[in-house]
Amino acid sequence: MIAVLKQDTSIQQRDSLINWFQSMGLEVHISEGDFHTIIGLIGDTSKVDIGLLESLSIIESVKRISEPFKNANRKFHAEDSIIDVNGNKIGGGHFQIIAGPCSVENHDQIIEIAQRVKASGATILRGGAFKPRTSPYDFQGLKADGIELLLEAKKLTGMPIISEIMNIKDLELFEEVDIIQVGARNMQNFDLLKELGRTKKNILIKRGLANNLKELLMSTEYIMAGGNENVILCERGIRTFETYTRNTLDLSAVPMLHELSHLPVVVDPSHATGLSRLVEPMAMAAAAAGADGLMIEVHNNPEKALCDGAQSLTPDQFDSVAKKVMKVREAVTL
Amino acid sequence: MIAVLKQDTSIQQRDSLINWFQSMGLEVHISEGDFHTIIGLIGDTSKVDIGLLESLSIIESVKRISEPFKNANRKFHAEDSIIDVNGNKIGGGHFQIIAGPCSVENHDQIIEIAQRVKASGATILRGGAFKPRTSPYDFQGLKADGIELLLEAKKLTGMPIISEIMNIKDLELFEEVDIIQVGARNMQNFDLLKELGRTKKNILIKRGLANNLKELLMSTEYIMAGGNENVILCERGIRTFETYTRNTLDLSAVPMLHELSHLPVVVDPSHATGLSRLVEPMAMAAAAAGADGLMIEVHNNPEKALCDGAQSLTPDQFDSVAKKVMKVREAVTL
Amino acid sequence: MIAVLKQDTSIQQRDSLINWFQSMGLEVHISEGDFHTIIGLIGDTSKVDIGLLESLSIIESVKRISEPFKNANRKFHAEDSIIDVNGNKIGGGHFQIIAGPCSVENHDQIIEIAQRVKASGATILRGGAFKPRTSPYDFQGLKADGIELLLEAKKLTGMPIISEIMNIKDLELFEEVDIIQVGARNMQNFDLLKELGRTKKNILIKRGLANNLKELLMSTEYIMAGGNENVILCERGIRTFETYTRNTLDLSAVPMLHELSHLPVVVDPSHATGLSRLVEPMAMAAAAAGADGLMIEVHNNPEKALCDGAQSLTPDQFDSVAKKVMKVREAVTL
Amino acid sequence: MIAVLKQDTSIQQRDSLINWFQSMGLEVHISEGDFHTIIGLIGDTSKVDIGLLESLSIIESVKRISEPFKNANRKFHAEDSIIDVNGNKIGGGHFQIIAGPCSVENHDQIIEIAQRVKASGATILRGGAFKPRTSPYDFQGLKADGIELLLEAKKLTGMPIISEIMNIKDLELFEEVDIIQVGARNMQNFDLLKELGRTKKNILIKRGLANNLKELLMSTEYIMAGGNENVILCERGIRTFETYTRNTLDLSAVPMLHELSHLPVVVDPSHATGLSRLVEPMAMAAAAAGADGLMIEVHNNPEKALCDGAQSLTPDQFDSVAKKVMKVREAVTL
Repeated sequence: MIAVLKQDTSIQQRDSLINWFQSMGLEVHISEGDFHTIIGLIGDTSKVDIGLLESLSIIESVKRISEPFKNANRKFHAEDSIIDVNGNKIGGGHFQIIAGPCSVENHDQIIEIAQRVKASGATILRGGAFKPRTSPYDFQGLKADGIELLLEAKKLTGMPIISEIMNIKDLELFEEVDIIQVGARNMQNFDLLKELGRTKKNILIKRGLANNLKELLMSTEYIMAGGNENVILCERGIRTFETYTRNTLDLSAVPMLHELSHLPVVVDPSHATGLSRLVEPMAMAAAAAGADGLMIEVHNNPEKALCDGAQSLTPDQFDSVAKKVMKVREAVTL
Repeated sequence: MIAVLKQDTSIQQRDSLINWFQSMGLEVHISEGDFHTIIGLIGDTSKVDIGLLESLSIIESVKRISEPFKNANRKFHAEDSIIDVNGNKIGGGHFQIIAGPCSVENHDQIIEIAQRVKASGATILRGGAFKPRTSPYDFQGLKADGIELLLEAKKLTGMPIISEIMNIKDLELFEEVDIIQVGARNMQNFDLLKELGRTKKNILIKRGLANNLKELLMSTEYIMAGGNENVILCERGIRTFETYTRNTLDLSAVPMLHELSHLPVVVDPSHATGLSRLVEPMAMAAAAAGADGLMIEVHNNPEKALCDGAQSLTPDQFDSVAKKVMKVREAVTL
Repeated sequence: MIAVLKQDTSIQQRDSLINWFQSMGLEVHISEGDFHTIIGLIGDTSKVDIGLLESLSIIESVKRISEPFKNANRKFHAEDSIIDVNGNKIGGGHFQIIAGPCSVENHDQIIEIAQRVKASGATILRGGAFKPRTSPYDFQGLKADGIELLLEAKKLTGMPIISEIMNIKDLELFEEVDIIQVGARNMQNFDLLKELGRTKKNILIKRGLANNLKELLMSTEYIMAGGNENVILCERGIRTFETYTRNTLDLSAVPMLHELSHLPVVVDPSHATGLSRLVEPMAMAAAAAGADGLMIEVHNNPEKALCDGAQSLTPDQFDSVAKKVMKVREAVTL
Repeated sequence: MIAVLKQDTSIQQRDSLINWFQSMGLEVHISEGDFHTIIGLIGDTSKVDIGLLESLSIIESVKRISEPFKNANRKFHAEDSIIDVNGNKIGGGHFQIIAGPCSVENHDQIIEIAQRVKASGATILRGGAFKPRTSPYDFQGLKADGIELLLEAKKLTGMPIISEIMNIKDLELFEEVDIIQVGARNMQNFDLLKELGRTKKNILIKRGLANNLKELLMSTEYIMAGGNENVILCERGIRTFETYTRNTLDLSAVPMLHELSHLPVVVDPSHATGLSRLVEPMAMAAAAAGADGLMIEVHNNPEKALCDGAQSLTPDQFDSVAKKVMKVREAVTL
C-alpha cells in the first residue's frame, strides 16, 4: 500500500502516522520529494481501512498495491477452481450452457423447455421463481410453487437447476436447488452474502449494473470468508450511456476476471443485451473470449404467437445458438 | 403508451396485437406511415408489462407516456408531501439538517456529537449501527448496541434519530428509530422495501449508484403500494467516469424529483463527494437547488488527532456549514 | 415521429402546432388521452429539428420513429457495403486484419513491422504520424515524415496503409494513404467530416469515447451526405466506471451496427483494453461477434527490451493472435 | 511518481528500469515487499510518458503524484487568475453572467435580446454563429454573418461578446470577438487548441461530455503552453445513464477545479440540463457552489409563440433568474 502525504504535513503529523502504521506491524518506507512525501507500506495491509486512511487531512491519496480480496485471488491460488454441479464441471477448461425460461410459469412450460434445451446441449436448467422487478405491479414470480416446478423438471430430465434467491428467509426452499443465484441488484446485499457463505451450496453471483470487478470480487469474499468456496462469477452487462442495448456487455471482464481470480466466469448475453437477436453473436463472442459457461433465456409459448421474438430465444433458435457456440469452443480450445 | 410496429408486420399480427390491447380495456389509435405503424394506447396502461411488449418480434419500440409510478407521482397529488419527524417537518417549504457520525462508536462519541450538531442547528441525529462495507474485513458497525447508543442520545438531547437497516429481521430493533434509512445498495432490495411498506415508519430511501430517477420512484412505489406514504428521497451521488470525487452529485435530481413527485428530497453531500472540503460548497448548492434537507457526516475524535480532516466534518466545520446553508436558504426562500 | 403534448396545452396552442407540422407537408394523427395528447407525424420527418420541437413549452416529449441517418441506414440499402482497399475487401463477408505500430518512429521500425505482420496475415498496415495526445508534453508524432515512412513501407511491401488525420489542412499529405482514419476525439469534429465527405478517400471513423451508436451513424452522415460513401465504422471502447481496463469494449455494437447500417464494422481491441494481454481474447471475441475486420497494434523494439509487454503486441504475439482469429472466423462462417 | 513492479520481475529487468529512470535525472527509492516492489520517483516527472511506462511487461501499475498539468496548476500559482473581458472581470471573487441566444438568427433578434439581458444584469453577450449539430441536416448557424450581427450588437450595447469557433481557418473572423469559445466536442481537438495558444484572445473551454477534470486541465495546457494564459473553464454537464436531463451537471467540479487550478470556472446550466425549467435552480446552485460566472441561453421570439418554453429562457424568465442568482451570490460572499 502506498500513501502520499500532502505538501504541508508537519513532521509531527508524519511521525504520528508512521507510528500508527508500525503499530499495525507494517514496515514503512519513505521517499521525500519537493512537493510530496511517499510512504510505502509493506506487510499484511488487508486489514487497513482505506476509507479511514483517505479521510485523514494530511493524506493526498492512497493506493492499494495488493488487491483487498484474498480467497478469490489468483495470486494465492494459481490453478483454476472447478465447480462441480452434479457432475457438470464449470471452469478449468470445462464449459456448460445453462438455459431455461426467465420465469417458471407452469408445469408444461418448464418441462417442455427443459427437454428441448437438454436435447440441444444445455446441461443446467435455469428458471426464475422469485423475480426482482422494477415495478411492484409487474409479475413477481411463482415463488415456492416455482421452485417446486423446477424440482419436478430436475427429476424428470436429470438436469441440475439454478434459481435466484432474493431473501435469506427462503433459503430452505433451495435445499435441492443445485446453484443459488445472487442477482445483480443483490450483489452488495451483504447480509444475504454472509448467510450464503455459511452454506455449502454452489453460488452464482452476478455483477451489479454499476459495480466494477474489484467490488464483484469483494462480494465473493463475503461468501468465501464464511467458508463456502463454491462460487461462480457472472458477467451480465453494465449500465452505460448507450441506449440501443439494455446494458453494455463487458466481455473484457472475462479474461480480466480470469487474471485476477481462479473462479469460473459465466456470461449471460440475454439480460446484457435485452434483445434476442443479439444473443447469438454475443454468446459466440463470450465463448471466444474464454467464458467458462453461458446462461441463456429460452422460452416456449405456443399459445402466444406474439412472443416469438422475445428477449428469450425459442427452443429452435437456442438449438442454433448452442451449435454455433460449440463450434467456437472447438476453434478456441484446439 | 405508444408502440411502434416494424415495417414487415403482417395485418394478422397487427390485428392480433390490437385485440390483445383492447382486451385489457385500452383504447387503440393507429397512424400508418411508409416505414412504420404507430399505435397509441389510451387508458390505464400502468399494468401493461413493458418488458413483455418490447420483446414481441413485431415491435420496434415502446414508449410510456404516463409514468409507471402512481403513489409518488405529482400528477395525482399536486401538493408537496410533508413528513413530520417528531415535530420536525421535511418538505413543503420545511427544511431540516440531519447530522451525525458515519458509525456510532461509543457512548461518549455519539452524545458529544449529538450535542454539538444540535447546538449548530441540526435537528435530526444520524448514526450508522449496521454498516454496509465493500470488504468483509472492514468494520461492520456495532449493530444492536449501536441502536441502543443512538436511543440514549435521543433521550438525552431530544433529537429524533435516523439509522440504516440492512436486513428486515432487524426491524424490531428500529421501533424507536424515527427514520429508517434504506441505503443506496439496497434501493432495489424489493423484499426489504415491501416489508417497510407494511410499517408506518418514516423511510428515507437513497438513490442507488447506478439508478435513474424513474427507478428510484419505482422503488418508493414498493413502499407506498404497501400503504406507507412516509417516504423521503435522498440524492447521494451517482457513479460516473470522474475519479476526483468518489461519486458525482447530481443536483439537477432535486428540481427534477420535485417536478415528478410530491415527496421531499434530501441531499447527502458527504457520501456524494467523499471529501470533507467539498461538503460546504455542495451543501450550499443543494440548498440553492431547492433541497428539503441535508444529511451531513460529522465526527469528533479527540483521541485520534489524525482524523481531523475526514470525509466527516468536525463539529466546528459543521457549525460553519450550517450557518452558510441557512444564509443560502434565506436568500432562496425570501 | 411522435410528439406528446402536455396535459395543460390549450386547443389554440395545439392547433397552432398542428398547422406548423402540416405546413412542412407532414400528415398528423391525434390520439387524445386523459393526461396527454399524442401526435403521430407521418412523412419525411428527417428535416424536423428535434431540439427545437423538444424545447416547446407544450411538449412533454418527442420520439423519432425513423432514424435520422439516411445514407448509412440499412433500411434504404439492404445489402452490406463492401469497401475495397486496393483489392482487400472489407464487409459483406470479407474480413481484413489491419496491424502496425501506434506511432511510426523510423524507417527500420516501420519496414520490419510491416514485413512481420504481412507474413502473419495482416493485409493493411497502420501507423500513426499525427498523434492526438492528452498532454502537450507527450510525443506528437513524426507528422509529414511519418506519412513518408508509411509510403515507403507501402512501396516495399505492397500493403495499403491507414493513418489518422487531425487537421484538414494536412489532407494533401494523405493523397496516397489508402484509408484516412478519423480518431475517437474527432468523431464530432464536423468541419473535418464535411471536408472528408468531399473527397473519394476511404474513411475509417472511430466511435467517440462517450458517443452512442446513433451519434456515430450521424457523423458518418456528415461524410456520406457530401458524396463519399467509402466509410468503415470502428468500435474501440467506451468510457465507463470500470478501471481495470482503459475503456470498455462494447462488442454488442458490432451486431447492432450491422442491423442499423450497411457499413462494415472493424474492432480495435488494443485501444479498447489498453492491455496487450487482453488483445488476443478480445480479438477472437470480435471475430466471433461478426466484425468485418480488426485493427491491432504491433510493435518491434529490439533496442528497448523494456517494451516487450507493451499494449502493442510483439510480432510473435501478433502471429499467434492472427492464427487464432482465423480459426474463429472459420468456425463462425462455415 | 510511483511504479509498482510485478512479482516475477527479474533483478536484471529491475536494474535496467532503474537505470532508465536515473538517466532521466530522477531520484529512485525502492520498497521491497513479498508480492511487489514499489519504486518511488522524485524529481521532474512531467516529461515521463506514463503510457509508455504502463505498457512495460514488468509494470503492475503506475501512479502520478504530481499532476501532469503545470500552467493551470494551483500548486505553482496560488492566487486566483482573473480574466478581464473589456473591464468585466471573471475569477478571484468577480462574477459575471453571460447570456444570449443559442444561435444568432437576425439583426432584430440579437439586438433585442442583448438589450434585454443587459437590462437584467448580464454583462457579456453570447450567440452562436458556427453551430456544431449532431445531424448535417440541422441548422448549422449563420457563420460569418452571425459574427457580423454579434459585432453590431456589441457596438450598440457596449457588451463584450463570446462565440464558438469550430475551425481554426475562421480565426480572423473572431478578431473583435472578446471571448472565443471552444465547445465540448472540440475539447480535445488539439490542433485547434495549439493555434488558440498562439493568440492572446480570451478562451472559454467547455468540458467534454466524457472528459474528466484532469483531461480538461490538460487541454488548457495545450493553450497555455503556447503562451496564452487567458483561459476560462466551463462545466456544462457530463454524459451519464440518467435520461430525464440531457446531461448531468457536475457541480462538484466547481470547487474541485478551484482546488486544482487557479483558472476561473463558469457553469452553463442551459446545455447541462436541456430543460428551461431547470435553469433557475441549477444557476442558483452553481452560484452557491462558488462558480465565477454563468452562461445562460435566452431567446426572444415573438413571431414564434410556440417557442416560449424553449431550453432558452425568455427575457422575463432570465430577469427572474438573474435576480435570484444575485441574491445567492450575496448570501455566499458576505
